[in-house]
Amino acid sequence: MTAHTTPAPPARRGRRPGTNTTRQAVLDAARTRFATDGFTGTTIRRVAADAGVDASLVMQFFRSKDELFAAVMSVPADALTRFSAAFEGTDDLLGERVVRAFIEVWEIDARTSEPLMAMLRGAIVNDQANKQLREFLQERLLVDAIASRDVDGATLRAGVVSSMLVGLMVGRGVVGVPTLADAERETLVALVGPAVQRVLVPAPPATDGKE
Amino acid sequence: MTAHTTPAPPARRGRRPGTNTTRQAVLDAARTRFATDGFTGTTIRRVAADAGVDASLVMQFFRSKDELFAAVMSVPADALTRFSAAFEGTDDLLGERVVRAFIEVWEIDARTSEPLMAMLRGAIVNDQANKQLREFLQERLLVDAIASRDVDGATLRAGVVSSMLVGLMVGRGVVGVPTLADAERETLVALVGPAVQRVLVPAPPATDGKE
Repeated sequence: MTAHTTPAPPARRGRRPGTNTTRQAVLDAARTRFATDGFTGTTIRRVAADAGVDASLVMQFFRSKDELFAAVMSVPADALTRFSAAFEGTDDLLGERVVRAFIEVWEIDARTSEPLMAMLRGAIVNDQANKQLREFLQERLLVDAIASRDVDGATLRAGVVSSMLVGLMVGRGVVGVPTLADAERETLVALVGPAVQRVLVPAPPATDGKE
Repeated sequence: MTAHTTPAPPARRGRRPGTNTTRQAVLDAARTRFATDGFTGTTIRRVAADAGVDASLVMQFFRSKDELFAAVMSVPADALTRFSAAFEGTDDLLGERVVRAFIEVWEIDARTSEPLMAMLRGAIVNDQANKQLREFLQERLLVDAIASRDVDGATLRAGVVSSMLVGLMVGRGVVGVPTLADAERETLVALVGPAVQRVLVPAPPATDGKE
């Protein structure tokens, strides 16, 4: 399509007329491809072919399939970055950091919370959004982060924590359960953090072993 | 239509052959339909067909889809009884008992799971369902049970646990996240139980106090 456009430097938007058009063409192709083939079945190469551009240009714009997917789902890479950041550091208070990151991404920053809420609402009534949310939760959210810690059952732990925290966000934001909606953010962090910690980090064998 | 796996409760109301039986058949059909198709996707006509009655009879009984929905969504007393039962006994393994009761109510027994799923799917698109879910989470689910234990912030704790476990059930059943859907029930109980325990039962001051 606009294959002859001079490649623009990455992460610069609107520098010249061709760039935004090409970027949009890639996004459109990716949206369709993710919609029909799903996350796993979609390749950068195929999206590039659909958009009529070179694969290297897609990489230049979006750096990875993950970020391309995030852009299509309107989930700013910012959200993913923040989850990853929560996993940096020691196990100590990991649960609280993750809960805090969740609340920030889902509630404080409208640029992340609005598209996430939209995807969530869509997932209940729309099969395609459901499929995308499923893959997103399964393969993206927290999985990379926790896997890097080399814990047994990392995927299951990530899925459990993601779904439980999404449930909390929905109870607070969508359903509006008063006791949840009224709770201070740090009250929730203090209450839920240790629980999340228990799922993410296996209990040390040193304790009394009762739980 | 009432061919549920679990035996019917002994207390049968109004044995008169005509009206109550037909009304019950309509409710059963509606419950299944709302649970699978959601509020928007369900029509009076379709429910009537499922129940083997005329649509005008459904209207005669319930006047509108909204009222039919409200009738279906009354939270099964059975579910509340089972949650209360989970709270009986010592604090030991309370979290695991609660998680197990949740899974039973949401997944195993169709008499409880269908109305709950109907309420959940409806809550996204229907204000009445949203209100009912909100009240259910705030006032009914776990609150009485945990309040009986005289714990600080009982309502908040109950709301947090309810919303997180509903999130888990949605991730597993509605969204169908593979790692969650594939997990054995007792694996989930073992992983999530201690986390729920941490929210329901304040950490004893005796431990190192780090978490």
